[in-house]
Amino acid sequence: MNYCVATYRCHDDKADFHKKAHSIAIGLTVGSWTELPAAKQKEMEKHLGVVLSVDVFEPSGSADGSGRYADIRIAYPDINFSHDIPALLITVFGKLSMDGKIKLIDLHFSPSFLSSFAGPKFGIGGIRELLGVQDRPLLMSIFKSVVGHDLEELGRQFYGQAAGGVDLIKDDEILFENPLTPIEKRVQTCMEAARRAETVTGQKLLYAVNITGPASKLAEQAKKAIAAGANALLFNVLAYGFDTLRELSADPDISVPIAAHPALSGAMYPSPHYGISASVLLGKLMRLCGADLVLFPSPYGSVVMPKEENMAIRHALVTDELAKDYVYLSPGQAGSEAPIALRESFPVPSAGIHPGLVPWIIRDFGVDVVVNAGGGIHGHPLGTAAGGQAFRQAIDAVMGGVTLEDYGRTHPELQAATQLWGAKQ
Amino acid sequence: MNYCVATYRCHDDKADFHKKAHSIAIGLTVGSWTELPAAKQKEMEKHLGVVLSVDVFEPSGSADGSGRYADIRIAYPDINFSHDIPALLITVFGKLSMDGKIKLIDLHFSPSFLSSFAGPKFGIGGIRELLGVQDRPLLMSIFKSVVGHDLEELGRQFYGQAAGGVDLIKDDEILFENPLTPIEKRVQTCMEAARRAETVTGQKLLYAVNITGPASKLAEQAKKAIAAGANALLFNVLAYGFDTLRELSADPDISVPIAAHPALSGAMYPSPHYGISASVLLGKLMRLCGADLVLFPSPYGSVVMPKEENMAIRHALVTDELAKDYVYLSPGQAGSEAPIALRESFPVPSAGIHPGLVPWIIRDFGVDVVVNAGGGIHGHPLGTAAGGQAFRQAIDAVMGGVTLEDYGRTHPELQAATQLWGAKQ
Repeated sequence: MNYCVATYRCHDDKADFHKKAHSIAIGLTVGSWTELPAAKQKEMEKHLGVVLSVDVFEPSGSADGSGRYADIRIAYPDINFSHDIPALLITVFGKLSMDGKIKLIDLHFSPSFLSSFAGPKFGIGGIRELLGVQDRPLLMSIFKSVVGHDLEELGRQFYGQAAGGVDLIKDDEILFENPLTPIEKRVQTCMEAARRAETVTGQKLLYAVNITGPASKLAEQAKKAIAAGANALLFNVLAYGFDTLRELSADPDISVPIAAHPALSGAMYPSPHYGISASVLLGKLMRLCGADLVLFPSPYGSVVMPKEENMAIRHALVTDELAKDYVYLSPGQAGSEAPIALRESFPVPSAGIHPGLVPWIIRDFGVDVVVNAGGGIHGHPLGTAAGGQAFRQAIDAVMGGVTLEDYGRTHPELQAATQLWGAKQ
Repeated sequence: MNYCVATYRCHDDKADFHKKAHSIAIGLTVGSWTELPAAKQKEMEKHLGVVLSVDVFEPSGSADGSGRYADIRIAYPDINFSHDIPALLITVFGKLSMDGKIKLIDLHFSPSFLSSFAGPKFGIGGIRELLGVQDRPLLMSIFKSVVGHDLEELGRQFYGQAAGGVDLIKDDEILFENPLTPIEKRVQTCMEAARRAETVTGQKLLYAVNITGPASKLAEQAKKAIAAGANALLFNVLAYGFDTLRELSADPDISVPIAAHPALSGAMYPSPHYGISASVLLGKLMRLCGADLVLFPSPYGSVVMPKEENMAIRHALVTDELAKDYVYLSPGQAGSEAPIALRESFPVPSAGIHPGLVPWIIRDFGVDVVVNAGGGIHGHPLGTAAGGQAFRQAIDAVMGGVTLEDYGRTHPELQAATQLWGAKQ
């Protein structure tokens, strides 16, 4: 027997959470149970959901029960759903999402469910290999503004960023097909700027071009971009669904890394009472479906996500524990399954990042992280290229165990940045 | 100039909401404004977002500002995004969804944006024509339980529902491709049961079969079902994205009505602080993208949505006001545009419905509504067929201006139902 496990946080002032858990386990699987004859129960047992645990938290000092909640873990037999993310989500949270204050806070997958997913095609190792950079965090930058600009302006912005030594440049997620900068010409212009920059910096660069448009034409759009020279893609996963990401990633002709943008995910993860947690949406599901890089709001900057949620996303993207709870259910089988070895996805904490934050980013994420900056590069007092250089210097300083202050004494770009934005040590 | 208008509700104890509104209007369009030279501003003005209104609500009697919010309306130039739902949502709420307590509570579309959408292929009128029923609400039923059952059992459940005189039967949304009831055999079995029932009831019936599986194979799956005899489809829209619904609906070979299931929508609409309102998700976007029927939690039953939200969904599904705010922006052009005439989508308030609620449903929704029942049909004391008959009798009573109590005196199925579940008048 294989099960996937959903963990819910359920807020209710007075509900019988054990009763609710059992009604979920039955209602979302076999539909009814106690009224079935014993022979039928035996036949249906392999389809029945199992309540694994109900942990009730009673708030202290609350007379009316407000703040009372329970964490409920339910195991769903794999046999009930096809092995894809839409089927799993619809089973465990389709109807249930509409049934009171309930949030899907975690998902664990059976090895057999996991085996239907290839995960990232490149992952952290593959991207490092493409770039020839093994021993330090990568640096990504984004355009300053894109809407209403022509190819020449985009090329100029691109070159400025590339000349500063960034490893990746991503399109803005709001840049769609448009007459000023259509995708093939945009790729040609930007990759040409990348080549020019390479002669100065001596380093490779990935440009993640935004794949947009009708759902059934996304793969075609991706291949068009690749044919024009694109060496990475950006994709707004939530607008098209996780299975579309999985299909793009699994397509053998889409031979470049995919960066997943978190656009629209804030409609689901921030509420304590409703939705789906960030570590499921932007962690586990992104990695399963093949995102090589995953952007999410950092805990440091302007669009803030709590640090523990960032760490939970990181954990989902880089550890080998996606099938962790399986052993709980079927101890006898645990040894017989091959370990799950999906490639790791690069965490890309984003928004409000400046060079002075690099020590914190590396402290929290380790070396396998992409430092992603916009205003922190374009707003540098000495210009865009100096902005990129300041970040690279900050990374070098931290990797070399030198404080930013010390390193800044001999690196004016870094010094100018930390003077403007400050520095964390 | 054409604009689409987004309305946000933004909660903050002390923010300067006017400043925030302008920062959104600039940040999600041209990126920066005040630092641009005047000539560049002139060139970029057609891409600039416009703040239409900021209505601040200060709570009375709150010393710390808690409960303070503003409704902010911002117009986004159509020229900035391709005319599809992913592009519109990513523009107006992609990054913004992650930026504090902000909820997308409404969307208005320019006529030029709307003109890219065909809306429902059948709609209320088309479905009535297929069924030959013009003058009363329709009756839909759902299976009692599906997971783990074989074709024989599904056929038996189907016949029981059909024999009671229901107009539509829908698959359970958690029924995926499986060895016991694969889609083609399921369609054949159920349509055969429908034909047998028709000889008894003398009426037509639509069976909405659940279209599931890999994103790029959904259209193929739909055509396979239609080739096997399916005369309607059920689709879990939120799991695959709105553009996939639009493509299925626009496909000339998919020649049957599509019922949109709200599975997973509860991850987005219920919070007052985050997400996207139900009237946008389950109203405007469903209709635009071609849902002929839209299910949503009723305000009457077990999985409850507030009545005003139900009424807002209904309004979005059946009125001609999708482009309403456009005249505000461009009064000069309003008269020159053809009126927008998308077909209407059938509202299907669902969950916890019994025959005694029919007077309320018709009072709230009028005659153009689908009464959708599960337990209220299968749990009828005289059996499943009697359950369907009781609903049809309740509908006949209300349409004839007779109370359920009076009508029940000569209709034992209705009487048994209202005795068990009660009746609203």
